[in-house]
Amino acid sequence: MELTLAQLAEQLNVELRGDGEVRISAVAPLQEGRCGALSFLANPKYRRYLKTTQAAVVVLSGQYAAESPVPVLVSDNPYACYARAVRLIYPQDAAPCGIHPAAVVDLDAHVDPGAWIDAGSIIAAGARIGPSVQVGPACVVGNDVVIGDGSQLVARVTVLAGSHIGKRVVLHPGAVIGSDGFGMAQIDGRWEKVPQLGSVRIGDDVDIGANTTIDRGALQDTIIEAGVKIDNQVQVGHNVSIGAHTAIAGCVGISGSARIGRHCTLAGGVGLVGHLEIVDNVHITAMSMVTRSISKPGTYSAGTPLMANPQWRRNAVRIKELDILVRRVSKLEKIR
Amino acid sequence: MELTLAQLAEQLNVELRGDGEVRISAVAPLQEGRCGALSFLANPKYRRYLKTTQAAVVVLSGQYAAESPVPVLVSDNPYACYARAVRLIYPQDAAPCGIHPAAVVDLDAHVDPGAWIDAGSIIAAGARIGPSVQVGPACVVGNDVVIGDGSQLVARVTVLAGSHIGKRVVLHPGAVIGSDGFGMAQIDGRWEKVPQLGSVRIGDDVDIGANTTIDRGALQDTIIEAGVKIDNQVQVGHNVSIGAHTAIAGCVGISGSARIGRHCTLAGGVGLVGHLEIVDNVHITAMSMVTRSISKPGTYSAGTPLMANPQWRRNAVRIKELDILVRRVSKLEKIR
Amino acid sequence: MELTLAQLAEQLNVELRGDGEVRISAVAPLQEGRCGALSFLANPKYRRYLKTTQAAVVVLSGQYAAESPVPVLVSDNPYACYARAVRLIYPQDAAPCGIHPAAVVDLDAHVDPGAWIDAGSIIAAGARIGPSVQVGPACVVGNDVVIGDGSQLVARVTVLAGSHIGKRVVLHPGAVIGSDGFGMAQIDGRWEKVPQLGSVRIGDDVDIGANTTIDRGALQDTIIEAGVKIDNQVQVGHNVSIGAHTAIAGCVGISGSARIGRHCTLAGGVGLVGHLEIVDNVHITAMSMVTRSISKPGTYSAGTPLMANPQWRRNAVRIKELDILVRRVSKLEKIR
Repeated sequence: MELTLAQLAEQLNVELRGDGEVRISAVAPLQEGRCGALSFLANPKYRRYLKTTQAAVVVLSGQYAAESPVPVLVSDNPYACYARAVRLIYPQDAAPCGIHPAAVVDLDAHVDPGAWIDAGSIIAAGARIGPSVQVGPACVVGNDVVIGDGSQLVARVTVLAGSHIGKRVVLHPGAVIGSDGFGMAQIDGRWEKVPQLGSVRIGDDVDIGANTTIDRGALQDTIIEAGVKIDNQVQVGHNVSIGAHTAIAGCVGISGSARIGRHCTLAGGVGLVGHLEIVDNVHITAMSMVTRSISKPGTYSAGTPLMANPQWRRNAVRIKELDILVRRVSKLEKIR
Repeated sequence: MELTLAQLAEQLNVELRGDGEVRISAVAPLQEGRCGALSFLANPKYRRYLKTTQAAVVVLSGQYAAESPVPVLVSDNPYACYARAVRLIYPQDAAPCGIHPAAVVDLDAHVDPGAWIDAGSIIAAGARIGPSVQVGPACVVGNDVVIGDGSQLVARVTVLAGSHIGKRVVLHPGAVIGSDGFGMAQIDGRWEKVPQLGSVRIGDDVDIGANTTIDRGALQDTIIEAGVKIDNQVQVGHNVSIGAHTAIAGCVGISGSARIGRHCTLAGGVGLVGHLEIVDNVHITAMSMVTRSISKPGTYSAGTPLMANPQWRRNAVRIKELDILVRRVSKLEKIR
Repeated sequence: MELTLAQLAEQLNVELRGDGEVRISAVAPLQEGRCGALSFLANPKYRRYLKTTQAAVVVLSGQYAAESPVPVLVSDNPYACYARAVRLIYPQDAAPCGIHPAAVVDLDAHVDPGAWIDAGSIIAAGARIGPSVQVGPACVVGNDVVIGDGSQLVARVTVLAGSHIGKRVVLHPGAVIGSDGFGMAQIDGRWEKVPQLGSVRIGDDVDIGANTTIDRGALQDTIIEAGVKIDNQVQVGHNVSIGAHTAIAGCVGISGSARIGRHCTLAGGVGLVGHLEIVDNVHITAMSMVTRSISKPGTYSAGTPLMANPQWRRNAVRIKELDILVRRVSKLEKIR
């Protein structure tokens, strides 16, 4: 789709500085800008590319506008403004609807006539697939699953019996929703499985990343509230509750019965032990282990800094005697 | 299924304190107990809910019995007793048998008439599927795989050629059994693949979690002994051996040729380097890195505690000079 | 396939010490060697098995040749030599070609007549499948995907629209190539998705492990150069670039826009934050967190050593006061 800068500025509701007649039909990185392309500057790391950009227009915040050699769209939130510009420049194709002949849909499933079920997908009895839902190839949708309007199962997604998926949810390939929780009782040194009777409830506008797994609850449901965004390779244990608009990066592991607040962020590789509670607006930095509840908003961290290996070898071993070192220092202080 | 408390106490072989005529037809959490529902108290964290529970009966250990406002079933192992009660109250439906018309079963595969192969599943030549096996939708079973009586492939499970699965094994969605190990030889700076000729052998009563991967051995087999329980998102490298009744939580990574004993537990996010040996009854706490063999039973840990980010920044950087700090303290001690 | 030692030595181009008439038809570990079997000694840990080996021949480096009770093949790189010997002793069966009747291939896809598409696989319009490609069961290949000559999708692999796969690439089960990157802009406390317009480009001779995920780029492509080997359960974020012949072990997480050089190794469980750059020939040890760019080749580490749990409890808590400890020592030094 081709738009003039004047049209873009109007539709994005931002200020244009420059020629409104310039035509935009693509997007490109700042350092690879070219005729007809819109770029953006959000991360200050890339400011060095601004002065020499070949883009036709740059979306940026007011403070950098004067540095641009080309027209600018001025926004307080250039990254979000860029995201919306992309949607205007690349409007999505109309989605298909119907059922591919190589799909297997149970006679007792209800598929809205405006939904699409692609080849190789299997929809079980009692499932309810809402309007405009896109079920991509090779998905499995279990008994009595509900999938809300406009949601998308990209490809090879598994949603197990009884799960409830909201509207406009995107489930990426390989995601598994509603697998059994890891609940086991020990009897004489053996593990006996505890039946997992709960389900999974996912709110509206949630994203679940590729190969991420969300376990069903043991007795209550596992809850993912509206607007939560979860990246790839994340594990969410049974009975977990994740508050609205929380974002969880790749490779995070959340143990059973943890309760996470709203507007939190968990960076990549973070791990939470079970049965803890985290309030709203908590941010955990990468690869931190969270072993206790957090009752105060803020940013929390754990882990050790990267070192050259010989330096690490010298220092890491000393951690084993840190408590003794503290006692040695206390003794020296008493002597003095 | 509705049972009286007297019937439940008898079938579970535990002491009932209270009215044996009360009827039970559901289970519920202690804090959400209701008429007709059985609850349990296993984790002392939830004891505060006991006094006000609305459940019809609570399974608990003798020490808490006097605190219950409702009838109790007294057990030394209330969690296990609860698990068994669930099985009585919610008996499983009879499993189907036969082959779904949308399954693809090779003429040279052997499927027991009492097994069930669901839509979209593909069974290769030479595979042997035992009695009462449930192969859910969209599974792949490779050449010459053996699956023992009563095992279940929940959905979208991949079992590659030659793997041997025991009886009553449950493989959760997305699990991959028998992928090639990561064996490579370096030749002039390039990696050349070393053929992986071993297989995977999984004992009876094993659970393998969603999206977990178990590599085949290089020359010998990868071995998972009876009763091992593995959670989601776990990686088990080639030639690994895991002893009976060991439990492995989510996101654990086990490098090649590690040997783990019986009755061990690895908490979430633990990592083991390769070629090490861990004896029976070893427990590793969450996110610990295991870089050496462990020859003595017990609990082991690594990692650093969570701190508010500014505190962490001040402290973590000091780890880089810990060895120097120890030397400084030694010097002070000599001077004194 | 049966070969004499003389034939093997000639084809492997290595020195034979021993009877060239001995016949070899199998391989076996050194400690389980038997008549007719070739073994190897590469890791010095296993040298103790050499003196009593029952193998028919051992591939090893010259320094150990005198210790062998049986004939030896002498190689500077015994592990690579062994890998090549395996290929001679176990030649691969001729690969099938054609399209299984239970595959779904779009009329506008191009499948080379020498390629094989197995049951349950779904090939979308515009895809180009090259000669000798093996697409195993239950794979999904999206629109306009290109798969180069001789590549293999083992089973249940997902390659999403527009991805470009080189020659002789192996994609293991559950791998997802081209999932959307985790790009989101925050607007008034909510996350809005940033469209992911880039693709994934994978060079020749790359291996991608089971259940590994490679995200498509946001604007530019995610690049995996030739000869890169990636193990299971790895997450590669959008716009990442991985240099040729780098090896990445299981459970590694690489955040978006990281750039990794050539001939690097990342051990199991390593995590990289985004927007950093690592030069060629960098090696990161297991479970290290990399939070900054690395401009100098070498080996780098982070993390804390494993301790018995009581010792760890005593020491880990002291890390919280490490900065204070350093100040206390500085004070003592001034007093003295």
